[in-house]
Amino acid sequence: MDLHLMGQEAKVASRFLAQMTTQQKNAVISAIADRLESEKDNIVAINKQDYKEAEQKGMEPFMLDRLSLDGRVEGIVADLRHVVHLNDPVGEIFDKTTREDGLKICKIRTPIGVIGVIYESRPNVTLDIASLCLKTGNAAILRGGSETLRTNRILVKLIQDVLKEHSVPVSAIQFIDSNDRSLVKEMLQQSDTIDLIIPRGGEKLHRFCRENSHIPVITGGIGVCHLFVDETAQVDKAIKVLHNAKTQRPTVCNSLDTVIVHAKIAEQFLPKMALALLPSNVTLHADTASQCIFNNNQIVNIAAQEKDWDREWLTLDLGVKVVDDLSQAIEHIQKHSTKHSDGILTEDQDHAKRFIREIDSAAVYVNASTRFTDGAQLGLGAEVAVSTQPLHARGPMGLQELTTYKWIVEGEYHVRS
Amino acid sequence: MDLHLMGQEAKVASRFLAQMTTQQKNAVISAIADRLESEKDNIVAINKQDYKEAEQKGMEPFMLDRLSLDGRVEGIVADLRHVVHLNDPVGEIFDKTTREDGLKICKIRTPIGVIGVIYESRPNVTLDIASLCLKTGNAAILRGGSETLRTNRILVKLIQDVLKEHSVPVSAIQFIDSNDRSLVKEMLQQSDTIDLIIPRGGEKLHRFCRENSHIPVITGGIGVCHLFVDETAQVDKAIKVLHNAKTQRPTVCNSLDTVIVHAKIAEQFLPKMALALLPSNVTLHADTASQCIFNNNQIVNIAAQEKDWDREWLTLDLGVKVVDDLSQAIEHIQKHSTKHSDGILTEDQDHAKRFIREIDSAAVYVNASTRFTDGAQLGLGAEVAVSTQPLHARGPMGLQELTTYKWIVEGEYHVRS
Repeated sequence: MDLHLMGQEAKVASRFLAQMTTQQKNAVISAIADRLESEKDNIVAINKQDYKEAEQKGMEPFMLDRLSLDGRVEGIVADLRHVVHLNDPVGEIFDKTTREDGLKICKIRTPIGVIGVIYESRPNVTLDIASLCLKTGNAAILRGGSETLRTNRILVKLIQDVLKEHSVPVSAIQFIDSNDRSLVKEMLQQSDTIDLIIPRGGEKLHRFCRENSHIPVITGGIGVCHLFVDETAQVDKAIKVLHNAKTQRPTVCNSLDTVIVHAKIAEQFLPKMALALLPSNVTLHADTASQCIFNNNQIVNIAAQEKDWDREWLTLDLGVKVVDDLSQAIEHIQKHSTKHSDGILTEDQDHAKRFIREIDSAAVYVNASTRFTDGAQLGLGAEVAVSTQPLHARGPMGLQELTTYKWIVEGEYHVRS
Repeated sequence: MDLHLMGQEAKVASRFLAQMTTQQKNAVISAIADRLESEKDNIVAINKQDYKEAEQKGMEPFMLDRLSLDGRVEGIVADLRHVVHLNDPVGEIFDKTTREDGLKICKIRTPIGVIGVIYESRPNVTLDIASLCLKTGNAAILRGGSETLRTNRILVKLIQDVLKEHSVPVSAIQFIDSNDRSLVKEMLQQSDTIDLIIPRGGEKLHRFCRENSHIPVITGGIGVCHLFVDETAQVDKAIKVLHNAKTQRPTVCNSLDTVIVHAKIAEQFLPKMALALLPSNVTLHADTASQCIFNNNQIVNIAAQEKDWDREWLTLDLGVKVVDDLSQAIEHIQKHSTKHSDGILTEDQDHAKRFIREIDSAAVYVNASTRFTDGAQLGLGAEVAVSTQPLHARGPMGLQELTTYKWIVEGEYHVRS
């Protein structure tokens, strides 16, 4: 694998992609969807080989689940067709002004260039990223997990076959077809050709990218998410929100990790909350104050460890903490949040305002479940990643977040005086 | 110097700054301007010590010039007062929508957090960055050049004295008061506390930051800038633009480095251009074709070396190249541009459109001097840096480019179904 050459070819392809019309790009994405549909059986069969091998190697069930394409190809085909219908941000003109001397200034949205994506397990990401990059005129270099090598190989071949048929350079979507781990580090050093790195995986991968990349990295996707139940919260409705945030899909980054309850309603609230959560098999990890209340009410719970406050559970576990006031709640969140999604449940408008002002997370909620931090839910149509860092984009990243802009300055032979 | 501690203190200060009102921030910046005005003589005297030492060490004249504050304090005071009058982007609400189910979504502009700035020589940058960061609610950690240590020390003390008097944490603006070069690398590793690195210096500094930083870096400020004189350009007006782009301020990044001339007008154009540029002491570095024309007309020139096409001159030197058509001009620019500022001089609208479409530089010009790539000229009011990379911001970065946003989602106990 010559990553330097791959990068150079991707850069050339990116210039071609930047000149394609929306119609041309949509035709390619539609054709990928059609091909995927017609080759479904073959792809699922190959994916089963990856699955079997991973199973034999003892991969954890939730990872195995992510790896499987069985019964999921239809959904991916639908996603691809959805991308075709989304608005193409490239070419949009904005911030248009004319100076007093007649010099015309505007910005025009352009592709970023070459995007490097490093991900684990889920082969659907391959098609996801490929379609979103093609739609926004970006080339992509993909590095998938070693456990999905066969699946990714056939998927990228399919994509490249379609590119070829549409006379688009096949190096527009490239794949690092090797299990050699040293290639990740090498990929992160191709700053002459790759413009942006998006890691999609755990904290370890994100840290590795941050520490080794010569290219800007958008880290995110890791959510230690909080909801603070304020003194004035409507109890029954608040419990429904907590139940949704914790149990609707506990394996994802926007699910709830810690509930913080105002001491003034804790005695009333916590037993009711436990009654609602326990039938859904939620395990409560309680601080001293909440444990006291649970024990007094014969409610099963575990004593929380200090490290639990920094855990992204991804399971049906929930930290429970009692605080004296809003300030303590904010302090706890500022200390333990990964700046993904945090919220307050309250009827007190001043408290809501202060919470919004002081909590610096990608998504800040008032009286809603943290589960809405998602490109589709927040109206972006699609999602490349969820950024928890402040540069370029924050929170869910859609098509527009895969673009940049250039300034266009038009004059009548204007000179600067 | 404990950079880890500095970073932590900056992070705490940044939370304080994020809560300040525009009025409070302006009061601090105004007070810094006032103090600077009243302590001018003392500051200039201390700056003269730095100047004298640098002079004795044999610093190049253009660097010495950048170092001096003599006669420049008034201008800096005026710049600070100008920042007071600029619009504060923090708190601006945008992309406001309400879903069909009543969930309210918007984004609100927020400070980035802690900005690390690494720069050379120019002590005015210290006040520049401090005021722009304070205005946008960001904390800053500054690393200036070793040659300006005394000046920066007194300037940062002045800023911190004012911060203290306004009950703002002094760690809002910190300064690495040491010549130890290893501290730069250490600074680049503080990814837990510093959110963005802005290097202001040469290519070597930018590359060092890219390769060693664990924090996103905005590279830029290096411009190998081109103007293409198309077949249809108005000769006299085009020459005025070239003269302006090359000679108005040759030491800055948006000045012209290479002029590319269409072969069909080269014979007519080049001698006229030379006549206009030579009295301004411009040295012409000519390719074979243009050299032939110059020599036939007894015009002094030097044969261009291949490496000259990649040179940011920063002097009164100019590369001259003749091409057969627009495609060749675009190809040359794509190969040699640093993606800062490139333009076309033409009367052909189709050529202008194609040039805009295919040249992927931060600023693309039609019939105007490249000298307009500047925050003040393009209407941003101020400038932190000029980005030539595509992430977060491109081209001149003003106050808004020192901010990020967070999503605010407000519901009536909404849950995701």
